[in-house]
Amino acid sequence: MKLATLKSGGRDGTLVVVSRDLVTCQAVPKIARTLQQALDDWDHVAPRLLQVYDQLNAGTAAGAESFIEEECASPLPRAFQWADGSAYINHVELVRKARGAQVPPSFYTDPLMYQGGSDSFVGPCDPIAVLSEEWGVDLEAEVAVVTGDVPMGASIEKAAQAIRLVMLVNDVSLRNLIPKELEKGFGFFQSKPASAFSPVAVTPDELGDAWRDSKLCLPLQVTLNDAPFGRPNAGDDMTFSFAQLIAHAAKTRELGAGSIIGSGTVSNKQGSLHGSSIANGGVGYCCLAELRMYETIEHGAPSTPFLRFGDTVRIEMFDADGASVFGAIDQEVAHYHGRKE
Amino acid sequence: MKLATLKSGGRDGTLVVVSRDLVTCQAVPKIARTLQQALDDWDHVAPRLLQVYDQLNAGTAAGAESFIEEECASPLPRAFQWADGSAYINHVELVRKARGAQVPPSFYTDPLMYQGGSDSFVGPCDPIAVLSEEWGVDLEAEVAVVTGDVPMGASIEKAAQAIRLVMLVNDVSLRNLIPKELEKGFGFFQSKPASAFSPVAVTPDELGDAWRDSKLCLPLQVTLNDAPFGRPNAGDDMTFSFAQLIAHAAKTRELGAGSIIGSGTVSNKQGSLHGSSIANGGVGYCCLAELRMYETIEHGAPSTPFLRFGDTVRIEMFDADGASVFGAIDQEVAHYHGRKE
Repeated sequence: MKLATLKSGGRDGTLVVVSRDLVTCQAVPKIARTLQQALDDWDHVAPRLLQVYDQLNAGTAAGAESFIEEECASPLPRAFQWADGSAYINHVELVRKARGAQVPPSFYTDPLMYQGGSDSFVGPCDPIAVLSEEWGVDLEAEVAVVTGDVPMGASIEKAAQAIRLVMLVNDVSLRNLIPKELEKGFGFFQSKPASAFSPVAVTPDELGDAWRDSKLCLPLQVTLNDAPFGRPNAGDDMTFSFAQLIAHAAKTRELGAGSIIGSGTVSNKQGSLHGSSIANGGVGYCCLAELRMYETIEHGAPSTPFLRFGDTVRIEMFDADGASVFGAIDQEVAHYHGRKE
Repeated sequence: MKLATLKSGGRDGTLVVVSRDLVTCQAVPKIARTLQQALDDWDHVAPRLLQVYDQLNAGTAAGAESFIEEECASPLPRAFQWADGSAYINHVELVRKARGAQVPPSFYTDPLMYQGGSDSFVGPCDPIAVLSEEWGVDLEAEVAVVTGDVPMGASIEKAAQAIRLVMLVNDVSLRNLIPKELEKGFGFFQSKPASAFSPVAVTPDELGDAWRDSKLCLPLQVTLNDAPFGRPNAGDDMTFSFAQLIAHAAKTRELGAGSIIGSGTVSNKQGSLHGSSIANGGVGYCCLAELRMYETIEHGAPSTPFLRFGDTVRIEMFDADGASVFGAIDQEVAHYHGRKE
């Protein structure tokens, strides 16, 4: 089943069921007005949404409309929790190697995770709005899941069962603000502005064989200013599965329905820590920082700049038949000009 | 105006207006069913809530019922943002002094803040539920505000205007999990379980002279196992006002209506960094960690244990006439036994 949220209808938007081919959709106000409402009562709501999904795919839905990705908010326009892991340790290895440091052994058994802001995500086709290019704007292409209720101390098995939806995310980072912020010891805050999620969130069963052991085994396609930048497989080199990340998050507290758990920047090892750019025949990167670290390791300093106003980022994933699974995150870096009312 | 949320009515509870003396309350489903709904449309909703408040105080409200603090959820039972500052630098000075370290000069100009989990707060009279005493359970008595919408890059003046409500919070910390977690560099996660907020949230105007320059100038009363433990004035030694904390949080992103911003543990300097326990004639502490740091500085090691199962914590604040402003946070440490459905 595929779900999305149109921007119309207030702060939490309007839940729509989307056809598998992303061509049509239907609002379902009598079943659930918003995605959070659906998640709050999933066991009762999901079967009814599935009926609409089947009708949309059969072309028999009474209220089908055209599905337009540009009209979408993030599936949860605001959420009660956004916790982002760093499950691809290759990313951490690169960061450390670029500064001549070792990865602590515990990083391979105890996931890194930070609590992100979830009060105002931006839509998949909304600008990456910042006040200054000097902040060092970077994309981070990731996979994320939405959970149901998870009890404190949940097992990895129980955590896996709590995964309701899968989506993509651009976890924008302000690289030049990170060192000073992390130095203070309390983690990220100003260096992590609003994230954008893919237009569509899908249930794990929709992914078929590509969903294995709580990992999404498909290439994540990243395009930068219309040129291919990355296509690593999100199922490869993921040190911690989503089930492990959820269990980590729930170790000392319950997770409420609608909690979003991210994978961290997808990053493939490719046998070497170095030449993995697409130009070099590799699978490329999901953030500029990795390319800059490669440049630092190889040449002593980074040569690729961070994002500038007008730069565009596109993040998408295709199934084995070449069909877009989640629709595309398609954003342009722009100067922030105040709240949209 | 005073507002609270009763647990009945679903995950977001039922908004009630509460009389100034905390004796009666009235649900207002025709105005707003939940506090988040009221905050989403505050300019239109607040005047109508105020009419009910005036009627409650005059004893003329048609639907008045007894207000029972034990029936309350936190004013926002779940929120889209909970960002906690560390505005009382004396607390940081004590931590550092106990381990023989200096406070960096930037800490007096650049606030410390961490992103907390906001998906499932516990009620003011709910247990502090943990799976193990060995986690080092500690209270942290603080003040918090709830904001309206705040644009990115808001000035301190604009931030001050965005403060909608004030409340108290017990930001429970798992002290024994903190060192290992902070060492990883991504900030707190497992070491910060679910917080509890005071039964009642009040508008700043309700605080009269006690609300000055975005600070709450009243003693915060902390009782531990029925014995006085702390009564520092929350208006003293607050290095950063709430307006400054909000502006810090909004530097690189918008804050959505209903964002909660905390002060960090209230802590008074009292001229010395040492003998401030109530037994020593001081104003005492708002967390066990500070007493343990004092013990470490004075005697080389802490002697007071962290909280044990069955220990009770009460956090309250009284106005100049001795009336409780927010009602009491009144919690007992208990073993977690699964989700309440």
